[in-house]
Amino acid sequence: MSGATSLTAANPAAQHPQQAVPHAAADAYLLGGAGREVTLRANEAAWQRLGWLPRVLATPTAVETTCELLGRRWPTPWLAAPMAHLRLAHPDAELALALGSAAQGAGMVLSTQANTPLEIVGQAIAHDQARGPLWFQLYPYGQRDDWLRLAQRAQRAGFEAIVLTVDAPVQWSHPRARAAGFALPADWPQPNLPAPARHGSLDWLLQTALRWDDVAWLRVHCPLPLILKGILHPDDARLACERHLCDALVVSNHGGRVLDGLPPTAAVLPAVLQAVAQRIPVLVDGGLRCAADAAKALALGARAVLVGRPLIQALKQGGAEEVARLWRLWRDELAGTLALLGSKTIADLRASVLYPHVNGSAEG
Amino acid sequence: MSGATSLTAANPAAQHPQQAVPHAAADAYLLGGAGREVTLRANEAAWQRLGWLPRVLATPTAVETTCELLGRRWPTPWLAAPMAHLRLAHPDAELALALGSAAQGAGMVLSTQANTPLEIVGQAIAHDQARGPLWFQLYPYGQRDDWLRLAQRAQRAGFEAIVLTVDAPVQWSHPRARAAGFALPADWPQPNLPAPARHGSLDWLLQTALRWDDVAWLRVHCPLPLILKGILHPDDARLACERHLCDALVVSNHGGRVLDGLPPTAAVLPAVLQAVAQRIPVLVDGGLRCAADAAKALALGARAVLVGRPLIQALKQGGAEEVARLWRLWRDELAGTLALLGSKTIADLRASVLYPHVNGSAEG
Amino acid sequence: MSGATSLTAANPAAQHPQQAVPHAAADAYLLGGAGREVTLRANEAAWQRLGWLPRVLATPTAVETTCELLGRRWPTPWLAAPMAHLRLAHPDAELALALGSAAQGAGMVLSTQANTPLEIVGQAIAHDQARGPLWFQLYPYGQRDDWLRLAQRAQRAGFEAIVLTVDAPVQWSHPRARAAGFALPADWPQPNLPAPARHGSLDWLLQTALRWDDVAWLRVHCPLPLILKGILHPDDARLACERHLCDALVVSNHGGRVLDGLPPTAAVLPAVLQAVAQRIPVLVDGGLRCAADAAKALALGARAVLVGRPLIQALKQGGAEEVARLWRLWRDELAGTLALLGSKTIADLRASVLYPHVNGSAEG
Amino acid sequence: MSGATSLTAANPAAQHPQQAVPHAAADAYLLGGAGREVTLRANEAAWQRLGWLPRVLATPTAVETTCELLGRRWPTPWLAAPMAHLRLAHPDAELALALGSAAQGAGMVLSTQANTPLEIVGQAIAHDQARGPLWFQLYPYGQRDDWLRLAQRAQRAGFEAIVLTVDAPVQWSHPRARAAGFALPADWPQPNLPAPARHGSLDWLLQTALRWDDVAWLRVHCPLPLILKGILHPDDARLACERHLCDALVVSNHGGRVLDGLPPTAAVLPAVLQAVAQRIPVLVDGGLRCAADAAKALALGARAVLVGRPLIQALKQGGAEEVARLWRLWRDELAGTLALLGSKTIADLRASVLYPHVNGSAEG
Repeated sequence: MSGATSLTAANPAAQHPQQAVPHAAADAYLLGGAGREVTLRANEAAWQRLGWLPRVLATPTAVETTCELLGRRWPTPWLAAPMAHLRLAHPDAELALALGSAAQGAGMVLSTQANTPLEIVGQAIAHDQARGPLWFQLYPYGQRDDWLRLAQRAQRAGFEAIVLTVDAPVQWSHPRARAAGFALPADWPQPNLPAPARHGSLDWLLQTALRWDDVAWLRVHCPLPLILKGILHPDDARLACERHLCDALVVSNHGGRVLDGLPPTAAVLPAVLQAVAQRIPVLVDGGLRCAADAAKALALGARAVLVGRPLIQALKQGGAEEVARLWRLWRDELAGTLALLGSKTIADLRASVLYPHVNGSAEG
Repeated sequence: MSGATSLTAANPAAQHPQQAVPHAAADAYLLGGAGREVTLRANEAAWQRLGWLPRVLATPTAVETTCELLGRRWPTPWLAAPMAHLRLAHPDAELALALGSAAQGAGMVLSTQANTPLEIVGQAIAHDQARGPLWFQLYPYGQRDDWLRLAQRAQRAGFEAIVLTVDAPVQWSHPRARAAGFALPADWPQPNLPAPARHGSLDWLLQTALRWDDVAWLRVHCPLPLILKGILHPDDARLACERHLCDALVVSNHGGRVLDGLPPTAAVLPAVLQAVAQRIPVLVDGGLRCAADAAKALALGARAVLVGRPLIQALKQGGAEEVARLWRLWRDELAGTLALLGSKTIADLRASVLYPHVNGSAEG
Repeated sequence: MSGATSLTAANPAAQHPQQAVPHAAADAYLLGGAGREVTLRANEAAWQRLGWLPRVLATPTAVETTCELLGRRWPTPWLAAPMAHLRLAHPDAELALALGSAAQGAGMVLSTQANTPLEIVGQAIAHDQARGPLWFQLYPYGQRDDWLRLAQRAQRAGFEAIVLTVDAPVQWSHPRARAAGFALPADWPQPNLPAPARHGSLDWLLQTALRWDDVAWLRVHCPLPLILKGILHPDDARLACERHLCDALVVSNHGGRVLDGLPPTAAVLPAVLQAVAQRIPVLVDGGLRCAADAAKALALGARAVLVGRPLIQALKQGGAEEVARLWRLWRDELAGTLALLGSKTIADLRASVLYPHVNGSAEG
Repeated sequence: MSGATSLTAANPAAQHPQQAVPHAAADAYLLGGAGREVTLRANEAAWQRLGWLPRVLATPTAVETTCELLGRRWPTPWLAAPMAHLRLAHPDAELALALGSAAQGAGMVLSTQANTPLEIVGQAIAHDQARGPLWFQLYPYGQRDDWLRLAQRAQRAGFEAIVLTVDAPVQWSHPRARAAGFALPADWPQPNLPAPARHGSLDWLLQTALRWDDVAWLRVHCPLPLILKGILHPDDARLACERHLCDALVVSNHGGRVLDGLPPTAAVLPAVLQAVAQRIPVLVDGGLRCAADAAKALALGARAVLVGRPLIQALKQGGAEEVARLWRLWRDELAGTLALLGSKTIADLRASVLYPHVNGSAEG
């Protein structure tokens, strides 16, 4: 791949200290889920159950994988999901993810809990013409003014939207990570936090949790478009639309990492889409493991998807270069899948091309 | 944990003889179930299938895990289920369970078939202000007067209610225990039995089995509130309510230990609740393996839950201290779960926050 | 067990030659099924899915396991199914099965393809007052007169009914037995066949296959009650009843040994019972692995059950004595199960005590 | 088997060079499927779920396995599916498949991507009076005239129909084959291609993909009957019939090798049959692993079936001889299955003899 050298050369994070957490513990944290991981497994299974029933002999003469989002057209319909502590996966951490994603037209949502300063990420890819969307995920540390300052800092660095995670007022350790003895080192870098990270008590977490009025306040003051991530209930989607509280929303159960037992996102996406009724774009994440899964989400009506664990695996295997290789595979697979489904564009995809319960009991 | 020393120091059972039954045989007895263990597995699976569909951005500013039961408010909504022969799990047996549970505000139901005199348990925790409910489970050995004397003895020792097990007129060995060669030593202590335990013939068991008129008699004469444990059929629940035969009931299939093939308690709880129609509190046990499972039972409408096998595992691992550690984890998990579900209290939990068949075929 | 010595002493088959077929091959033949063994597995799974929802506090003061069949009351509601070539399991073969079954009040259906002369079996147990039913299973070798002579011979030896197997016009080797290299030795004893066994061509098998007019002819000429074994389709059951062609029928898929893909007997039993409408007794076999399974069949309305593979396992483990021990376990388990279900007798069992899909998705 | 010697002797391909691709990589390519292989597994599972509920005592006096197709009666209702690169399985490749199939009356569809010149195959079996149908599968390499020349070449060699694969406009490497490092050697023989095989870009593949107007053109010019393979959607079947575009069609998802997530063919066959409404014969392939599976397809209404992977396994095990042995087993199993189902002929098979969900939850 021609981009390989530049990907490595551009990477200041390579001087960072070595892996400070044992691999097994890091994997348990990065790849595990909450509780018994029922939601983690259900997320994947739900996409696999969905299938295709396309027409034949209707191949388009060309296909394109572009996607319109927040007023601009992007090369692909996917973004790297916001993920904390990626230095656990690779020393280049979020910078590797940014470079590898931009190289293949994929977007990126940088996490507040990243190990890389948002300015470094912005500087590396914000001016790349071929990249995907560049968004910043905001956790509400500190006071409202702190949030705003962070959003302004992201805007200055070239980020184009703020993603507000609304499904994780409580963050706790997972059984798998606990069993593996996972813990972050004392000097772990969190350069985007307005203040040093504290493991607050539950009481403190509850008092500082984000609420609808915070969203409304941010909506007024935030200099960037606002996207809510973590919507599952159609009533929440309806509320957000009716009160004009966001520019887009992401159907998400936080990859099964917060509350085990939440439904797979593939299962609730249709109801959310119905509630939104085309008023704003709806994205989705959770359990998407290949471009064909993404195509199913798009056929259901999602505008784009966020991808997490596959990128962690790629980062672990080879940093930016492997991330780019993965996205390239996805891009090719999406193009081929569109062709096999008789769709010239993503917008041509219809739910009618889906077949429910491929491996299930739907046949009679 | 600060309570560790006192937990050990207070423990007279530590001088008891060593484990007299091989570990594998003891485990087979303690953890196994009747028949092919279909009910044992179904109990666990039924809670896991149940999921959550909460609203977001509605976090309460504080949560509490307290529970009102028989006229008093308790720190947590759970009790250790009555379990026989706990010395098989740990030399401190029921005393360890009592101390570890009381230390974290959990209740306890002491079994007639315990290896520890009920007076020792009462003396250890009855006056603890932070403990949970303290109940005594009565097996109808001997004559009616024997039952009454035992109930009075329990009352004097500080127990607050009598739990009558109604689903085990026949007790038999399980295939797993049989295969492991499980047998109790001849001098096995059963200090709460009115007479030496006899392995009665089936005929004798049938003639001495508890019947509705026995319940009615006990209801009149028993000096303590009466709780029926082992109700599955809504008609039995209705009967108990209409004739005012008990102060509470426990939906239970005896942890899958008596009749294999009984439905999972999660499956029948809603129909029992409907039959009871709020007249008395309904508790449930069977297959609850974490606080989130308990929260599902509470959301369905159970007032509290009984917990068995997880405590046996904890006892085996570390006696009272490990029991306390387990209950502490449950308490924290319940608080966090309430917060994520947008519920300030257990009473705020509603069935509407549940999502059926997380890992199933409900999505379309 | 007191009957142990006499069981061995009475056994002339003990002088028979040693196991002539390797154990693995014998097991593959005895325990395997046709095709992919879908029916073999489905038989077992269907009983396991069925569960119980009994009432409590309604224990009968005594239970009895007797069963009325063809005008006589028997100690238990089960018979050993007709099984070919039992010498593969134990040198005492069918004689061990007969003695062990009679010792615990279980019935027996001797196969035409037995390795023991029917007269030896009749002599050993026909006059036992405590035994169960003694029936002879007739395969239509040779001509109609040959069948009749065999039935008369069975009558003289003390057999009380003829069981006609109607579901196996074609018998073929199973993949599992084929893979294990199973073959019968040349001098294998088949003393009940009217002529030496021939592995007929398919054409020959088809021409000599039993048809409804053969049943009608036998019905007229056979000196004993006639029972059809292998009915699955309700229309066949209805036909047999309307034309008065038999005294009882057995719902059976031949234990999954003839045509893979036949439905589990538990699944079709209700429709057959409805078609028969109490005109004749209906028995069932297939996948019954414990007395609780049998109780489910009886609760559905079967009069009695036939049991196969568990007896082969018992024979292999210890001949007559182990067969008796198994039946004793079944008898005790049935008595206890009746008690737990609140049924004094088998006739008291009702389908209303059953709960469908214990481990399934019936709960909401 | 008497045909063994001649099968080997007649085989010029035996002088071909040895296996040039490692076995594991060859297996991954030959036996693997697209994506996560959901469709590959679903194909097999769907046939296994289907079962039988036949009548008894209705055995025909003789059975026959013949099948009428395109105006001629054939010994069996099955053909070897078109499979590419069979030299990966055996040095005799397609010739072994042709000889072994013809020896047992099975048909064959030779692939454009075969390693054996179509003339060699035609010369070997076209004049065999006992063989099954001999068809040629056409991939649209080059221009329309190239296709026509290839069809004419096939006609001259004795092939009787052209099978047009319509479900694989895009062919890509499978994850399993990719992981195994599968690649064809540079000098790999593809003697039926009009031009050297090129791994075209996706753009090139899309532009040269077959479309309905190509089918219409071929329908007019092709000197042989035209069969469309790869139909799943009933609307495509209806279209093909209404416009008289083919003489038969094959319900196929390409054995799960092109687009993962396509429904199992057993699930969509009934809807396609209904759309076709007897106007042309409908064949089916995918997941058929034994003659009983084929019988289920025939009972649903398919005229014949195509078989793939079982033949690859047979080729690998023993070339032509093993292929013949497999087909012989299938023939015997089909005859026996017909007999057990009470059907004299394939045409007598009715869907009413099928039982849905043998191992499923259909029983109540």
